[in-house]
Amino acid sequence: MTFAATVLTLYPDMFPGPLGQSMAGRALGEKRWSLDTVQIRDFAEDRHKSVDDTPAGGGAGMVMRADVLARAVDHALAARPDAPLLYMSPRGAPLTQARVRTLAAGPGVSILCGRFEGIDQRLLDARPIEEISIGDYILSGGEMAALTLLDACIRLIPGVMGAAASGEDESFETGLLEYPHYTRPQEWEGRTIPEVLRSGDHARIEAWRKSQAEAITRLRRPDLWERHEGARDRSPSGAQREKKDE
Amino acid sequence: MTFAATVLTLYPDMFPGPLGQSMAGRALGEKRWSLDTVQIRDFAEDRHKSVDDTPAGGGAGMVMRADVLARAVDHALAARPDAPLLYMSPRGAPLTQARVRTLAAGPGVSILCGRFEGIDQRLLDARPIEEISIGDYILSGGEMAALTLLDACIRLIPGVMGAAASGEDESFETGLLEYPHYTRPQEWEGRTIPEVLRSGDHARIEAWRKSQAEAITRLRRPDLWERHEGARDRSPSGAQREKKDE
Repeated sequence: MTFAATVLTLYPDMFPGPLGQSMAGRALGEKRWSLDTVQIRDFAEDRHKSVDDTPAGGGAGMVMRADVLARAVDHALAARPDAPLLYMSPRGAPLTQARVRTLAAGPGVSILCGRFEGIDQRLLDARPIEEISIGDYILSGGEMAALTLLDACIRLIPGVMGAAASGEDESFETGLLEYPHYTRPQEWEGRTIPEVLRSGDHARIEAWRKSQAEAITRLRRPDLWERHEGARDRSPSGAQREKKDE
Repeated sequence: MTFAATVLTLYPDMFPGPLGQSMAGRALGEKRWSLDTVQIRDFAEDRHKSVDDTPAGGGAGMVMRADVLARAVDHALAARPDAPLLYMSPRGAPLTQARVRTLAAGPGVSILCGRFEGIDQRLLDARPIEEISIGDYILSGGEMAALTLLDACIRLIPGVMGAAASGEDESFETGLLEYPHYTRPQEWEGRTIPEVLRSGDHARIEAWRKSQAEAITRLRRPDLWERHEGARDRSPSGAQREKKDE
């Protein structure tokens, strides 16, 4: 099954953009995922093809119109009734690796990209739209957020990543940040690879990596650490549980 | 002064990518910001031009070599000694709008983009590198994260956004998610624009927007709301303080 991405945007030329290269680009060529862009402006009905207007109540910038967006959204919902319809917005639910994994296992996504100050709230109230945020910062539009979300999904599509095992040990998949990596040369600028990693003792290596992941998570992300510990405590298998959100 | 972005990557063709269009693209044409890419592979010294090797201690994937990356990083540090050197990584400090604002007000950024399983930890220990994460999910590499960070910075460079006022009311700038937007048509699918926004009473409109922003932040992001309230309580001016992180 192909993961089908449909992007509703005023800037279709931004796609596939960086997703046309490297791992995602190869996978696109191999039809492991597909990409359709929908030009929102094609759904404007006045002779100026206007998609936005000034904010009700005043204020800076422009707001995208509910009626124009609804026609574009309804087109996407009709074309892909099985795909969740996402709106990239800093007001949305923060994207997590667990949500990425669920999306990547599904039929695909339709993504609405806003521009300007935002979109008319009535569209969000009237249509089955999931608001998703990629982080607590403001972008020039939803396009970069859509590219980011798609990149996160595409690498998880079966066959896209080289080694099947890769991706399971990474940050967040265990609810923790990842342990540090080392590779040759053995010594660099007087710094050596930690002895345990050269021991060949797999149990010791695994224990070291786990303790490093725990230490860095506690230090850098007490919020993640608390959730990790909370998930462990709530789990029926207690301290043996190591995965979160799944 | 031009905001100068230097990107160290194995995929220079991904840049400027989506940043070559729309607002960021126009600003690039107007030389409000500049972009240099550095091909990391040019700093490999063996005949295969290898930049990575297998992880010490075993495991899936490949790790980028400290010696090769150090030569690329030292090149960037020499070329742009005044710009912070960032490494995009899920183990980094979560990017915030406050950090974006500080970066955008500075001389620019140098950004190291990793690929594969990650980079040799010794490079991060040995060089003045700031690890930044754009969110709690895994990407195929640092390039999409770099594009996202640059997009967030570029829109704040003076002269890039159309209306000077735009950007001050948005999510996070006040420590809250943004209030809902509305625009014409007055009625759409039986839904009308809230009466207060049509009242012309600016004080009432401002109060309504503030209460909407507070309500949606409390509902959707209790974590942000707690920080917002905490910042207010700690402030010398108490309840009158409304900005955080600044």
